[in-house]
Amino acid sequence: MILLDGKKVSSEIREEIAAKVAEIRKSGGKIPHLAAVIVGNDGASETYVAHKVKACKQVGFGSTLVRLEADVKEKELLDTIDDINGNDDIDGVIVQLPLPDHISEEKVIERIKVEKDVDGFHPVNVGRLFIDQPSYVSATPNGIIELIKRYNIETSGKHCVVLGRSNIVGKPMAVLMARKGYPGDATVTLCHSRTKDIESLCRSADILIVAMGRAEFVTGKMVKDGAVVIDVGITRVKSKKTKSGWKLLGDVKFDEVAPKCSYITPVPGGVGPMTIVSLLNNTLKASGKEIYS
Amino acid sequence: MILLDGKKVSSEIREEIAAKVAEIRKSGGKIPHLAAVIVGNDGASETYVAHKVKACKQVGFGSTLVRLEADVKEKELLDTIDDINGNDDIDGVIVQLPLPDHISEEKVIERIKVEKDVDGFHPVNVGRLFIDQPSYVSATPNGIIELIKRYNIETSGKHCVVLGRSNIVGKPMAVLMARKGYPGDATVTLCHSRTKDIESLCRSADILIVAMGRAEFVTGKMVKDGAVVIDVGITRVKSKKTKSGWKLLGDVKFDEVAPKCSYITPVPGGVGPMTIVSLLNNTLKASGKEIYS
Repeated sequence: MILLDGKKVSSEIREEIAAKVAEIRKSGGKIPHLAAVIVGNDGASETYVAHKVKACKQVGFGSTLVRLEADVKEKELLDTIDDINGNDDIDGVIVQLPLPDHISEEKVIERIKVEKDVDGFHPVNVGRLFIDQPSYVSATPNGIIELIKRYNIETSGKHCVVLGRSNIVGKPMAVLMARKGYPGDATVTLCHSRTKDIESLCRSADILIVAMGRAEFVTGKMVKDGAVVIDVGITRVKSKKTKSGWKLLGDVKFDEVAPKCSYITPVPGGVGPMTIVSLLNNTLKASGKEIYS
Repeated sequence: MILLDGKKVSSEIREEIAAKVAEIRKSGGKIPHLAAVIVGNDGASETYVAHKVKACKQVGFGSTLVRLEADVKEKELLDTIDDINGNDDIDGVIVQLPLPDHISEEKVIERIKVEKDVDGFHPVNVGRLFIDQPSYVSATPNGIIELIKRYNIETSGKHCVVLGRSNIVGKPMAVLMARKGYPGDATVTLCHSRTKDIESLCRSADILIVAMGRAEFVTGKMVKDGAVVIDVGITRVKSKKTKSGWKLLGDVKFDEVAPKCSYITPVPGGVGPMTIVSLLNNTLKASGKEIYS
């Protein structure tokens, strides 16, 4: 069993990005710059945004954090996005979700200039992913694809079972694994809460991608020998064994499943660390006008 | 075995649309209007466009046919689209594909105003379909969904196997069948040329949607008893039995498969006739500003 070590891979990728930025700096080129917009003071959102801004600094990107009050008018947020869209120094912009109820997330996401939508949430980027045109792929699917590539995992002709049909993980993963080329060319089954006999479908998987948000849902008997298991879930549960009183669980019962696998992601330290480097990579691409020229 | 009679259903829908147009006319409202752009003189394209224009007339829509020479400059085609985009009398526009090699289909499709993209090919409409927001769904998937609805075919928890991963049929069908609600909530397996053991996957299907473009690919032994089979394929082959010297074959070996099915589409007369009514329906929606207000 080989651990898909997202922590290690993501730090390698950060170093690669930092090296590219150093080169750009040396040649007097434009330094990539990410703007992050946060509305209100939600604790989790604050943490996520802080991580992203820190990651930018570490690789040498410029970054701008725009804070707006929780009661900001929708129009003001849209105006802020317009300003960022029009600012040539800023290559990519993310708006931390969720937004307060009085603001339409749909409207906000669609207002972001497609060329700067490094979260890959704008319908144009989603649509282009779907029809296999170059686009910004959102952080989690992007990170999983990168892990698969770095470990040279064979995907062609494999049966890939995806558990969970969310817009930001399950559905894009299904499309990415089924598309032509590598990683891809897999036969993909998309399962969800209405799926019958999910156990035997899981057992038929050569590659199992789990994004249900149900702690330890996948048990040992649901996985076939030699399978590749990618666990996107992360649930915080109380624990008497840790100092903090909490521990993090994936959607996969790791101790039971891992011994059967050819490859498996740990939680934490698997998919999670890959997501921020995906954002960095998209920002680098935006700066280099790799997707939209 | 019940035949999914696309010819009959589509003519019912045309009558429903014609009745709505008559009402609009009576109340002095705006009559829906479709513009079709054709470039060059490809025989098949001419036939398709003529059918679409005729269908518009039959239900009482206005229609405009714009003909451009095969050697038209890309810019001129884009300008034509801009004119149509800006013309308030025109609710929907389609550009007949394929286009000559010197013109970028991607650029042309992205130039169409999303609100008038009744073919549903613009990345914004594709993306919105993918993330389950209101959008124009393209003709074939739209037509299949409508057939499933009209025959009240149960889809929740069913295993739907889709053969073919094209952007305009296979992938959107997979997403539509997997989404929440009806028709949907199916467990979906997307198969293609790289799929191993396609026969046994087909046999596991409660609903089998075939869009490979390979005449009579699906045989009797590949279908389980009671399955719903939807055949999107249409291949013209030589025949000594017909006056014309040609006959049309689907991707399914009808004579072998039909006796085992609960429902099956014939070819021709199944999915085919549903596609033009989907276009009419989208144009009606565009006129009523049902998707984008």
